[in-house]
Amino acid sequence: MSIEHTVVFRLVHEPGSAEEQEFLATARETLTGIPGVEGFAVLRQVSPKSALTHQFRMTFADAAAYDAYNAHPAHVGFVEGRWVPEVAEFQEYDFLA
Amino acid sequence: MSIEHTVVFRLVHEPGSAEEQEFLATARETLTGIPGVEGFAVLRQVSPKSALTHQFRMTFADAAAYDAYNAHPAHVGFVEGRWVPEVAEFQEYDFLA
Repeated sequence: MSIEHTVVFRLVHEPGSAEEQEFLATARETLTGIPGVEGFAVLRQVSPKSALTHQFRMTFADAAAYDAYNAHPAHVGFVEGRWVPEVAEFQEYDFLA
Repeated sequence: MSIEHTVVFRLVHEPGSAEEQEFLATARETLTGIPGVEGFAVLRQVSPKSALTHQFRMTFADAAAYDAYNAHPAHVGFVEGRWVPEVAEFQEYDFLA
């Protein structure tokens, strides 16, 4: 059964800044290059009921593909090098149809 | 621009209970009957990084359709009669592509 992995987040950068755009572009380039990542999307979160501003969304064919993504050096490197220093707050959710 | 309206939530009912199933079925029947609601889906939230267990997801063609849904008597009645007493915790997010 496929798994939709999502994370809603807010960056430390100013909305609309060059730093924000660079982060989003690098995330897309890095994460879509990891095997098993399907349907990667970046969405804006606009409900005033949450302070979070963006969502990354991707689908994995199964739990093995998801596990391989989590352990992949490109993912681990992105989390350590970019996510931790540049994301102010976030919440993960994974969905099954 | 279309808006994806989502709410992630946890019920007061036992997971897998008849009460849970009845709530989800009634929500689907009630909310999909409201004009403007497109692509209604019920998903299970399975990440251990959140205590929430389900998501409702729907799309509106524009802000006017979303506003009309919020104000529709069937939506207001569902929130007052079922959502408030039966939902333990929830978080709304709205996404733009």
